[in-house]
Amino acid sequence: MSDPRTIGSLVIDRLRALGVEHVFGIPGDYVLTFYKLLEQSPLHLVGTTREDCAGFAADAYARIRGVGALCVTYCVGGLNTVNAVACAYAERSPVVVLTGSPGLSERARNPYLHHMVRDFETQKEVFEKVTVAAVVLDDPLTAARQLDHAIAALTRYRRPIYVEIPRDLVHARLPVAAPASTIAEEATDPEVLAEALGEVRSMLVSAKRPVILAGAEAGRYGLQDELVRLVERFNMPVASTLHGKSVISEDHPSYVGVYGGLIGREEVLQFVHDSDCLLILGSILSDVDVLDPQRPELASGQVIHATADRIAIKHHRYDGIEFEAFVKGLLHLQIAPFASRTLPKPERAAYLRPEPADPITLQGLFSHLDTVLEDTTIVIADVGESLFASADLRVRRRFEFLSPAYYTSMGFAVPAAVGAGFADRRLRPLVLVGDGAFQMTGTELATAVRYGQTPIVLILNNRGYSTEREILEGTFNDIHEWRYERVCELIGGGTGWCIRTHGEFVESLDRALRDPSTLYVFNILLDPTDRSAGMKRLAGRLAERLTAQRES
Amino acid sequence: MSDPRTIGSLVIDRLRALGVEHVFGIPGDYVLTFYKLLEQSPLHLVGTTREDCAGFAADAYARIRGVGALCVTYCVGGLNTVNAVACAYAERSPVVVLTGSPGLSERARNPYLHHMVRDFETQKEVFEKVTVAAVVLDDPLTAARQLDHAIAALTRYRRPIYVEIPRDLVHARLPVAAPASTIAEEATDPEVLAEALGEVRSMLVSAKRPVILAGAEAGRYGLQDELVRLVERFNMPVASTLHGKSVISEDHPSYVGVYGGLIGREEVLQFVHDSDCLLILGSILSDVDVLDPQRPELASGQVIHATADRIAIKHHRYDGIEFEAFVKGLLHLQIAPFASRTLPKPERAAYLRPEPADPITLQGLFSHLDTVLEDTTIVIADVGESLFASADLRVRRRFEFLSPAYYTSMGFAVPAAVGAGFADRRLRPLVLVGDGAFQMTGTELATAVRYGQTPIVLILNNRGYSTEREILEGTFNDIHEWRYERVCELIGGGTGWCIRTHGEFVESLDRALRDPSTLYVFNILLDPTDRSAGMKRLAGRLAERLTAQRES
Repeated sequence: MSDPRTIGSLVIDRLRALGVEHVFGIPGDYVLTFYKLLEQSPLHLVGTTREDCAGFAADAYARIRGVGALCVTYCVGGLNTVNAVACAYAERSPVVVLTGSPGLSERARNPYLHHMVRDFETQKEVFEKVTVAAVVLDDPLTAARQLDHAIAALTRYRRPIYVEIPRDLVHARLPVAAPASTIAEEATDPEVLAEALGEVRSMLVSAKRPVILAGAEAGRYGLQDELVRLVERFNMPVASTLHGKSVISEDHPSYVGVYGGLIGREEVLQFVHDSDCLLILGSILSDVDVLDPQRPELASGQVIHATADRIAIKHHRYDGIEFEAFVKGLLHLQIAPFASRTLPKPERAAYLRPEPADPITLQGLFSHLDTVLEDTTIVIADVGESLFASADLRVRRRFEFLSPAYYTSMGFAVPAAVGAGFADRRLRPLVLVGDGAFQMTGTELATAVRYGQTPIVLILNNRGYSTEREILEGTFNDIHEWRYERVCELIGGGTGWCIRTHGEFVESLDRALRDPSTLYVFNILLDPTDRSAGMKRLAGRLAERLTAQRES
Repeated sequence: MSDPRTIGSLVIDRLRALGVEHVFGIPGDYVLTFYKLLEQSPLHLVGTTREDCAGFAADAYARIRGVGALCVTYCVGGLNTVNAVACAYAERSPVVVLTGSPGLSERARNPYLHHMVRDFETQKEVFEKVTVAAVVLDDPLTAARQLDHAIAALTRYRRPIYVEIPRDLVHARLPVAAPASTIAEEATDPEVLAEALGEVRSMLVSAKRPVILAGAEAGRYGLQDELVRLVERFNMPVASTLHGKSVISEDHPSYVGVYGGLIGREEVLQFVHDSDCLLILGSILSDVDVLDPQRPELASGQVIHATADRIAIKHHRYDGIEFEAFVKGLLHLQIAPFASRTLPKPERAAYLRPEPADPITLQGLFSHLDTVLEDTTIVIADVGESLFASADLRVRRRFEFLSPAYYTSMGFAVPAAVGAGFADRRLRPLVLVGDGAFQMTGTELATAVRYGQTPIVLILNNRGYSTEREILEGTFNDIHEWRYERVCELIGGGTGWCIRTHGEFVESLDRALRDPSTLYVFNILLDPTDRSAGMKRLAGRLAERLTAQRES
């Protein structure tokens, strides 16, 4: 690592220290000087077609590699990423937003510079709402300290930060070589931790039917190993939320399935609700996870609820305990393993074996997919059926399933596949994406072609916004149908197929899986009324809510 | 207009009263109830493929029709439009951002609802930065007053407003029929106005070489007629800024051309700088317009500078004068018409007449385009060469040229063409768009196909971000080349051509102009080093600035 001597090189060195190797984005005049510096650095620039796609790519990269980064120009670039960065905020994905801005000297000469909205602060003020730290490195004397404070917040909260460099300060010399500042971390108080763990122990020793419910934060804080050891040491069954899917291998013998108040299979719901001591690790319990957090269905109040924001036991909460310290502390509890119980069986029983000439259906598709996923496949699901139908898909390894299951922003999956491909080149993304979502960001596949990535993209084409159709039907749920498979001709790469029957799907997927040399796009023509079981449950429950609202 | 009885119908009635007939957007569960109401109303919903495109479409609609509207769901929809709405803010285009949000009752039950970022206020707080009013209609007692205040701000400042309806309040009954509230407008003080006009008169009567410099705000405030009358009554030459291009017909005998500090032709610059009394009407003088507003090149300080924000004369300013009142007041000045002078000639002289087999060039393309534009053509230019090369293109009517020439956000033109098509069905958009910008939003042409619009799209394909190449070259300016003409196959409509020679261009454009039945996409293969004269001047001057920064 070179000795940082300018604000620009300081930022680059800190990114490298965080493990970042790729930076996603699009250049623009206010950030060109910094782009030149990035180009000359060991970091790799990845040019996307849109800035929001750079945001989703960096998010996926962060979920796999620990930290992601994007670099965009002032306002016209940055403000295009607000939704993607908000997604990373909501879902706890640590993304560094790098941006340029007008030079301090030119601001004095003209108050109206191009790309400006209200005043020079507008972009920063917007990002203050969707990041845990927003800094402008406009002074060489304070730049290192400001940046390190922001990075400390990123690390602690696993949420995005915003770093702006006025373009005339990229090459500003730092006063002295600036070593990484030591930011005093808010440490865990050992007494408080001991008290909390003592309570947990008391609850567990008197429990007969404990269950762990694992959420996405266990993955964000890199605690997957601890989770497995916890499950195995105490022989506790474990469910995951939809958002936490793949924090534990779904082949693990203690895994009972995806729990979700809106989407879960009845037997998994029942099993979790039957627990007499529920240990929730790393889930905020959103409205997708639970029907109503105030309903006493969860373990009769015998709940330990640990997230990155707070540790709550029954009806009281502890401050001053870090999530990681708490989870690691659980491993040292002196408790005997629990007796084995009968667990809900994964519902992969009914592989329907449709006839090859049968029209393709969601059930046939997902049943088949479940049997052929390979170890190097990472499933990336967009919102809608892509997510809901894949709830019961079995993922075998960590990071094998990526989806914005809480923020549920359409258009995530294709650019996320690009990011995932750079985060770990051994992974081959299998993208599940609806037709509506594909219209939003599907052409980002051009970036996969550009950099030689070969994802397999399954477009679940049911001609409309079908989640919404289930809630409230109207012509506004219709979309104009594209010939999606022809996107390959537009972007100049890949092979596109139109899939009508089950046999075509099986055969084409087999061919795609056997050929890692190119990307594949499947336009899967579903019956517009086809719905997965998960979707039916979810949409029905959402519609109930909406009706309740309208009548109240 | 039905008597408003609910918050939802109130919003619809107010939109109609503003002259809005089309609402652009994408539905989502938090806004579905309102979408249903829109569907049942006389307003027409236009479904776009992306929310930011709905924003650009509404912006273009507003520039032509007076007010535009988009309707998107909470956060995942709204936050995707921040850049487009910021563009409308910066460029003074009055756009109403309609959005839903979680119901008040469900917020109480669960603090973590899907699509939420930090808290329930995040979306509103973001939009407060890029609108002139942001209101949440969460109380039937105050809804009408809040909405009317917001609309008053929209009307006065010609900038966007944000209107959020929690989904359980769409059908909330208003206490009484709510007539449009009368919002006390800040009126112009007649004494102040008289004093200012008196000063203007003194300056003009002693002037020999007065010039009007007209900017975009003259169009935003609907003062095009007044501008023409002013020019004709006093026989004053008129230039426009690039941003203000088309506020006056460029065929007008008193029109001298586009003035722009960064891009202007030397003789227009010289003519304006030579003026001994410069009347700037409706331009903020951004860095694209002037080299340096503090340099004394403009009329030796004999400057009247009127914008929607302030009226400044020489070095002092007047508060309490509305822009419209000032411009209308100028028409009543008692001054004799000025003597006619020799004006700079429009530079359309050199129609090069390249041979049909010659490779297509920017100069050949624009020279030809200048001769064939029809009265019903509206030129919509994206950023980069599309904008800079068209600076000298002659537009004959009002609204004939649309471009985000100040905010300069790439990807504006294609969705703006969709919006323009709805704003005035007699207009046929001719879109000029670079390859980079087309990759951002070009597939929005699907919406044109869906609704039977037939724009002509010229993609200036020079394989990269060429404005930036001129400023600072690097591999980051390269982009992956698409076969752009094949977008028609993807979206299932239109005719796409690849253009290599001047002859192919002339012939194809002729055919497209004669056939209004379908949309046309031209992939125009330019030499990557081809640059328009305007681009060369601009990029050179920007590069000088950048170098000055780096060295300072």
